[in-house]
Amino acid sequence: MIYETVRWKMADDRICAEFAGNKGLMPGKLRLIDQTLLPEKLEYVESDDIAEIHSFIKRLVVRGAPAIGAAAALGLAAAMQKSGADSRESFMCELRRSADYLASSRPTAVNLFWALGRCVDALKKSDADSPDTLKEKLLEEAFSILNEDMLLCENIGKNGATLLKDGMTVLTHCNAGALATCGIGTALAPIYIAHSRGLKIKVYADETRPLLQGARLTAWELDKAGIDVTVICDNMAGFLMGKGRIDLVITGADRIAANGDSANKIGTYSLAVLARHHKVPFYIAAPYSTIDMNINDGTAIPIEERAGEEISRSFGKQTAPPTVKIFNPAFDVTPHELISGIITEKGLILPPYKDGLKRYGLQLL
Amino acid sequence: MIYETVRWKMADDRICAEFAGNKGLMPGKLRLIDQTLLPEKLEYVESDDIAEIHSFIKRLVVRGAPAIGAAAALGLAAAMQKSGADSRESFMCELRRSADYLASSRPTAVNLFWALGRCVDALKKSDADSPDTLKEKLLEEAFSILNEDMLLCENIGKNGATLLKDGMTVLTHCNAGALATCGIGTALAPIYIAHSRGLKIKVYADETRPLLQGARLTAWELDKAGIDVTVICDNMAGFLMGKGRIDLVITGADRIAANGDSANKIGTYSLAVLARHHKVPFYIAAPYSTIDMNINDGTAIPIEERAGEEISRSFGKQTAPPTVKIFNPAFDVTPHELISGIITEKGLILPPYKDGLKRYGLQLL
Repeated sequence: MIYETVRWKMADDRICAEFAGNKGLMPGKLRLIDQTLLPEKLEYVESDDIAEIHSFIKRLVVRGAPAIGAAAALGLAAAMQKSGADSRESFMCELRRSADYLASSRPTAVNLFWALGRCVDALKKSDADSPDTLKEKLLEEAFSILNEDMLLCENIGKNGATLLKDGMTVLTHCNAGALATCGIGTALAPIYIAHSRGLKIKVYADETRPLLQGARLTAWELDKAGIDVTVICDNMAGFLMGKGRIDLVITGADRIAANGDSANKIGTYSLAVLARHHKVPFYIAAPYSTIDMNINDGTAIPIEERAGEEISRSFGKQTAPPTVKIFNPAFDVTPHELISGIITEKGLILPPYKDGLKRYGLQLL
Repeated sequence: MIYETVRWKMADDRICAEFAGNKGLMPGKLRLIDQTLLPEKLEYVESDDIAEIHSFIKRLVVRGAPAIGAAAALGLAAAMQKSGADSRESFMCELRRSADYLASSRPTAVNLFWALGRCVDALKKSDADSPDTLKEKLLEEAFSILNEDMLLCENIGKNGATLLKDGMTVLTHCNAGALATCGIGTALAPIYIAHSRGLKIKVYADETRPLLQGARLTAWELDKAGIDVTVICDNMAGFLMGKGRIDLVITGADRIAANGDSANKIGTYSLAVLARHHKVPFYIAAPYSTIDMNINDGTAIPIEERAGEEISRSFGKQTAPPTVKIFNPAFDVTPHELISGIITEKGLILPPYKDGLKRYGLQLL
């Protein structure tokens, strides 16, 4: 029962892997869980059509930076298997057009551009002439992206699992799990690893307003993996900490400044303040690449404001008067003083973060 | 534009008042805003039928302890105007039956039992023999309940308004406003009073999961009254405090212990912790009768746990997997150390609360 979520994802990967093994003679398709239907329905979408794959990313069928990147790369590879190009030149021309088109599916998703760019670059550098060889190389590169992210998640999990003891209760926010990555997630990875080692870990998942990624996605994937999970509203976290029922908080991060200040889903900062008040350790789990050494501290991280309708008309119901103002910041920044440690694939970084970051090889500007 | 909400309520009261003036010759009806339809539709329900009035309370057409009490008393009075009883004895018998029936509409609403009991007691004590005189007395008592609560709200407002200065921004949680009381509310009363004096007050209203009373009701009534209100998700309060954008927090309370520990809607405690961290004053506003001197501290206040479906199926959609556990405490207790002051109709009580409570005449057990 361990890793059921991950095994499911691996089963999907195997479908891709099959078409890789068949070298385009029997072209495969990108297969994804349709996350827009969770938790009501578990349905898959499959395609090797570039326009359809574009719409999967645009419609949030797949979300989470690492998952978007890998889906775009694998989608590009699947679509290009059908290419009728008869020369390297025409294949590369078609590849660039397709990659540019997929890159337009989510305007600000850095991982999306990075993964597509990496695929195009790999083929540019290759000296292969035959479109068939290029197709093979493209699949190889897309799978490298997938496999590297799986390994990265695994290592975050192993490094974070050192913090967990049998019987502990962990609180998490939003979804930084298997559904957001190619592997076992970032914030949830230590929990999956501890669970796989036979430790009993209880998880409280903040529902995470306004889009409820915690209730819809985190609860779903932990439940599928057989992990004891309970959903709460965001405003109940303080109550649980006050009752001594939370041992540890772990959340993901979207961007980490050179001093350790961490931007993540709105509500993370409140959790960190509550954790400090209750002397509950508060950890961030994220790939090392999330640390942006060009940013000295959190004040330089811009906070995206999203449409008020996400709050006032969530789930198709008018829950606030249409005439009333809504404030909907999508992220907040947790200052490094409130962070007990940053769990990365390279190791667990403890304060002071500037020294910790240096130890792992990043230099301050 | 000042007090528009309150004027609306008074307009409704006047309808009741009209039937009072007509002494049952042209029986009037209880008229209420149907709060279940807010904020999508403003519709009124009217009735003098005891079964219908029972269902108004049961279905949460009217909610908020003081509003429920007054609605039950006025509803009882309206229904009893139609009584065909020809003796004091048969009138009293019918009255008791009707009051008992209305009391069964919400099993744990203390104000409901109190208001109905007060009406029955007033008639028991009266020496009137004629059913017509008893009907008049009943209306009188019901209106006393209404008017006393209006005055109480007004005085909470005046006492709390001393804390507000022009240009201040106040954060509130849940709905402790005009819709929950017969007057201008408790937590919102200082804001209405300050606004009526020409002060510009900006309000942030926590949407208040799971039932969204802040987004649905607080935002609606403040907007109607012409007060600058912005809805946020509960998890955004810390972000705003961190940016220095909140000057004061005011919430209501359901029950206050002798030492000042205050039970209120879930999420209030988290707000109080966040306010302390950011050095933002945190006030409770409540009728003096909310202070329960039989309870030494907050640990003795039981916390109601409500159905998980309020969280997992709110918005009419399944937002968490149906197989997953949900934890849904309806209230939390804010310890007195985190409370800057308790605003009552008798005055503003400042710490230490035991002394403050004594000054206003309550004795510790």
